[in-house]
Amino acid sequence: MIFIKLTKRQEEIIEIVKKNQPITSEQIAEKLNLTRAALRPDLAILTMTGILEARPKVGYVYSKKGQNTLKYKSIKEITVGEIKSKPTVVSEDMSIYDSIIQLFINDTGTLFVENKGYLTGAVSRKDFLKITLGNTDIHKVPVGIIMTRMPNIITITDNESAYEAARRIIEHEIDSLPVVEKVKTEDGKEMYKITGKVSKTTITRLFVELGKE
Amino acid sequence: MIFIKLTKRQEEIIEIVKKNQPITSEQIAEKLNLTRAALRPDLAILTMTGILEARPKVGYVYSKKGQNTLKYKSIKEITVGEIKSKPTVVSEDMSIYDSIIQLFINDTGTLFVENKGYLTGAVSRKDFLKITLGNTDIHKVPVGIIMTRMPNIITITDNESAYEAARRIIEHEIDSLPVVEKVKTEDGKEMYKITGKVSKTTITRLFVELGKE
Repeated sequence: MIFIKLTKRQEEIIEIVKKNQPITSEQIAEKLNLTRAALRPDLAILTMTGILEARPKVGYVYSKKGQNTLKYKSIKEITVGEIKSKPTVVSEDMSIYDSIIQLFINDTGTLFVENKGYLTGAVSRKDFLKITLGNTDIHKVPVGIIMTRMPNIITITDNESAYEAARRIIEHEIDSLPVVEKVKTEDGKEMYKITGKVSKTTITRLFVELGKE
Repeated sequence: MIFIKLTKRQEEIIEIVKKNQPITSEQIAEKLNLTRAALRPDLAILTMTGILEARPKVGYVYSKKGQNTLKYKSIKEITVGEIKSKPTVVSEDMSIYDSIIQLFINDTGTLFVENKGYLTGAVSRKDFLKITLGNTDIHKVPVGIIMTRMPNIITITDNESAYEAARRIIEHEIDSLPVVEKVKTEDGKEMYKITGKVSKTTITRLFVELGKE
């Protein structure tokens, strides 16, 4: 597996083909204000990587799957929806102690908290560890008291990229993002339903998948 | 950024060029028992990705850096030595409580434990959380009592790949690997010195780097 970075012009060509396919090299050259000769190396690499397909007497078409023996997928094309895993969700009134038990049972690093089916918060191993060091009665105090509460939670949606999820995790120094779907409640409020999660584990697993033969 | 997977033959060509450079396409064809014409598409893609360089009247050479506008780096070519980060190390006799404080101060998920300069163990947030739920006197009991002890720790070395580090993290369901150097003690024992760590955070950060423009 190797990475190659496409040039801006190659990215432009892909966009042009996606929108106008099938399209001949003359037509692409015209749109870019270039000669066909100048375009030839770019078209060669785009067809060889299987991103574009050259159909004789028809023109170039965008090929979703890598053709021939070459496979490709842009990091930015892999979506959260494809890689998300199952979140562990508890309700706001569960005790801190019982929530920690859920953390262990599900072998996860972050719990997401719901109220009436909507995402209201998140708690990490670090939050729990901090609490257990103090004098809080973890058998009585509910997890809703110590959780990080919406809207202070960084979220992501199915259609965003795995790259964007990883970027957000690093930027905000968190372990995990809830994958959410925005919904309107009966009284017109905007709320989130949780449909999955993307964690550092998800990204590390994806990295291994991409590196595999 | 796109991924392409090289064919076996393309990998073979790279190996042949590495060993025999500069080498002409005739000579490569001969080694592979192929005609030059059959080889042409493979050589085209290898030069276009910048992996090989075609020098007129000299032949093909292996180009460590992607030439022209294309950059490439194999996931398996990125080494642990390039990406490792600083480990947080405590000594075996530090109390559990003080160790947890170190965990927070250094904002890390795993502590590595040393005795006389050699790696002897590791403790994770999860281990600490489990202990704080029980009746252990965390101010008195030293971290050496609860740590996972060598040789039950999965390690990695500078020259292994980032891919291999990620693979080991996923396979063994751990958060972090110590990067180690094997040394012989005066009495001939084999011990490890810790020189860094690779965690899920390291891999996620690398994933973001690779995906960046």
